[in-house]
Amino acid sequence: MSDPSTIVRTYIEMWNETDPERRRELVAQALTDDASYLDPLMAGNGVPEISDMIGAAQQQYPGHRFALVSGPDVHHDRVRFTWSMGSPTGEPVAVGVDFARTTDDGRMCDVTGFFEPAA
Amino acid sequence: MSDPSTIVRTYIEMWNETDPERRRELVAQALTDDASYLDPLMAGNGVPEISDMIGAAQQQYPGHRFALVSGPDVHHDRVRFTWSMGSPTGEPVAVGVDFARTTDDGRMCDVTGFFEPAA
Repeated sequence: MSDPSTIVRTYIEMWNETDPERRRELVAQALTDDASYLDPLMAGNGVPEISDMIGAAQQQYPGHRFALVSGPDVHHDRVRFTWSMGSPTGEPVAVGVDFARTTDDGRMCDVTGFFEPAA
Repeated sequence: MSDPSTIVRTYIEMWNETDPERRRELVAQALTDDASYLDPLMAGNGVPEISDMIGAAQQQYPGHRFALVSGPDVHHDRVRFTWSMGSPTGEPVAVGVDFARTTDDGRMCDVTGFFEPAA
């Protein structure tokens, strides 16, 4: 049983991990085997597909890094948190909010991402 | 098929409707028969229970009104929007974000509310 802060930290880490094998391990720590992910641009179902989806995103935004901006805000089995993506020089490129359900062991199973409008 | 803006407007209206019969009609317009609602303080499943839950909330906050602050922000079958609750004199009392899934006819089926920290 992992607490939401640990899970969300692992989740951010998985978005930043460029080694495919290590990334898949992190995805499996943060998300359930049958987890789904959906944001305005990307979708993935299950650990391998979500890990590959992140790899494809990294190809599009090489050297970019995700960071937790706020949260996790948790009640019952629901969690939300705000993240940012920064360019290799640290410029903020995108900000979004992810919303998820958690399971008994703490992993997230159902992640929806929304992008904040550009400031 | 109702568009998300119409559905969300009806959803806000249902939170403000104090007539039980009319409120249940609005709940049935905004949410599916088997919809679930969960926020940090309240839960309800199905139209009648959710309508009664709102009635109970109105007893706790008599004369308060909900308004849409921003959104709906929509992608795929997911929606989020920010609402505020104002006192009878119009003072903002609470702000929150609701996340939901929508179904083919546009109604929401799975609503999670989060409260923003007090400013």
